[in-house]
Amino acid sequence: MKIIIDAMGGDNAPEAIVKGAAAGINEFSDVNIVLTGDKGRIEDILEGLSYDKNRLEIVHTTQLIEMNDSPVKAMKEKPDSSMAVALKMVAEGKGEMAISAGNTGALVAGATLIVKRLPGIKRPALAPVLPTQTGEVLLIDVGATTECTPKYLQQFGVRGRIYREKMFGLQAPKVGLINIGGEEEKGSELTKQAYQLLKDAPVNFVGNAEGRDLLSGQYDVLVCDGFTGNIVLKFVEGCAKTILGMLKGYIKESTSAKLGAVFMKGAFGKLKKKMDYTEYGGSLLLGLRGGVVKSHGSSDEKAICNSIRNARKFISGNVVELIKDEIAKLAEE
Amino acid sequence: MKIIIDAMGGDNAPEAIVKGAAAGINEFSDVNIVLTGDKGRIEDILEGLSYDKNRLEIVHTTQLIEMNDSPVKAMKEKPDSSMAVALKMVAEGKGEMAISAGNTGALVAGATLIVKRLPGIKRPALAPVLPTQTGEVLLIDVGATTECTPKYLQQFGVRGRIYREKMFGLQAPKVGLINIGGEEEKGSELTKQAYQLLKDAPVNFVGNAEGRDLLSGQYDVLVCDGFTGNIVLKFVEGCAKTILGMLKGYIKESTSAKLGAVFMKGAFGKLKKKMDYTEYGGSLLLGLRGGVVKSHGSSDEKAICNSIRNARKFISGNVVELIKDEIAKLAEE
Repeated sequence: MKIIIDAMGGDNAPEAIVKGAAAGINEFSDVNIVLTGDKGRIEDILEGLSYDKNRLEIVHTTQLIEMNDSPVKAMKEKPDSSMAVALKMVAEGKGEMAISAGNTGALVAGATLIVKRLPGIKRPALAPVLPTQTGEVLLIDVGATTECTPKYLQQFGVRGRIYREKMFGLQAPKVGLINIGGEEEKGSELTKQAYQLLKDAPVNFVGNAEGRDLLSGQYDVLVCDGFTGNIVLKFVEGCAKTILGMLKGYIKESTSAKLGAVFMKGAFGKLKKKMDYTEYGGSLLLGLRGGVVKSHGSSDEKAICNSIRNARKFISGNVVELIKDEIAKLAEE
Repeated sequence: MKIIIDAMGGDNAPEAIVKGAAAGINEFSDVNIVLTGDKGRIEDILEGLSYDKNRLEIVHTTQLIEMNDSPVKAMKEKPDSSMAVALKMVAEGKGEMAISAGNTGALVAGATLIVKRLPGIKRPALAPVLPTQTGEVLLIDVGATTECTPKYLQQFGVRGRIYREKMFGLQAPKVGLINIGGEEEKGSELTKQAYQLLKDAPVNFVGNAEGRDLLSGQYDVLVCDGFTGNIVLKFVEGCAKTILGMLKGYIKESTSAKLGAVFMKGAFGKLKKKMDYTEYGGSLLLGLRGGVVKSHGSSDEKAICNSIRNARKFISGNVVELIKDEIAKLAEE
């Protein structure tokens, strides 16, 4: 399988991206990689690395989408950017999947314009995986579609289900709707109507999920509009940092706690790994005619390698085709 | 000052409420308390307690609003409920403040119908305080007004500012708008327009606050619609529980970590206290002609006593009058 990676997107590009790509080649023997970006700079980074050169190709591009570029404008004015070219290659079937750690808005806009939505899909959705007490939960959407209708949320539920079935091997994953009350009649106009549509959708809908239960492990898929999901996604990061920061402060105040922390180093290390976004391989953009992965803006080499792992699973799981079929069925009903 | 407390609302009512009221009388010498509810049951609980009997009065009520009653219906059909009577007493000037740990929706609906909004106030807002790495932040709204207009959010900002100035002694508290991007042009239609209105409002508006920064200590007031705020409020509770639950699991896996945890008992205790909602004295309902405090549904004796502390500060700070004046000024502009 062939995966196209935008070598120039992200806070640590191109270095971390190129190194992550080489690591991916070493780890997955069935993966070929194309890097889009500044050929000279990419070659300089590759020079010191050991990997199978036959499985890596560079496509030189001359433009760069910056983190604060306006999404649609950037896509239109920078057709030879590393991101646009990566998406074009997926659209033209020159690769099965594109990965970028660059400007999220531009990637969503570009993917919608270039790779295009599947027939019947109302809006794309970005779906990352979050750690829970007992495993993981898929959050859909986290910002591809800020303003939603009930129908969009219903479709997100179906996409989330397929993703969790095919990429995690779950049977009838439990789908929850993020809401401000447990009962059916609670919430905003959007969530009240989405509740009814999710009840009728081909998913194992288990009802509303309140803020305090999102990470409890009761849900396999959490459906919400992109505004809510974006706040939740970033808040997990912030909460973990704040809570551990507070604990660190209290440890510093006491000699006995400082000693205790030494003994707990292993446990803290495991917690850190569990809460580490780089472990989860980025967010899939679901609902398109091809695969697109958004890797975290501050992705390091490991994050990119994990995004490649995710992309690989997505391709083998045939997720695009399955979503296409289910959405077509839903439209017929 | 006289504070009216709904003795029958909340998971631990009436026992925890009545005990909390007695504790409040013992702690604050300038506070008189009226308990509304089932006189016989309240007297039974009071019997064993030591407190100044001259400063506590009981108003017998015959109805009870349940946690899952429909808000507006409950208020209309149960005029002699402990909650409705408490609100009526505030509306009639028989007390300066009402406290209830009962059904939040009913309390908001009842307060709006009975105590009534201040002139010019579009919608009420529930505003709790959350712990941050460096202190606290006021979150406004967390569910009194689920669907908002930009104007509502502007008014929330003004109310939040006054609350933080008067009840925490802050100078020019930093007001942030919860949003999905840092830049001015990011977000939903609601937040984009609210951004502009907050820039023009008499507050120290410092811009958009993303999920990862909500608890960083960069903000004194965080403005959002009630849907978003409710998710955030409950998610703090859930996140803390999940993260500490994960850590507990890792500790159990290792003998050295188990030993370390013993030495860290004090630090964990401080963290628990910092994250404990009962310490923060409930959420103020801001924008009404009188004071109303929503205490957490599972309030214990300490939580009720802290709600009395908050109510006391609210009355001394003259917050109702100040909000009235500022909103009138804003309307004239």
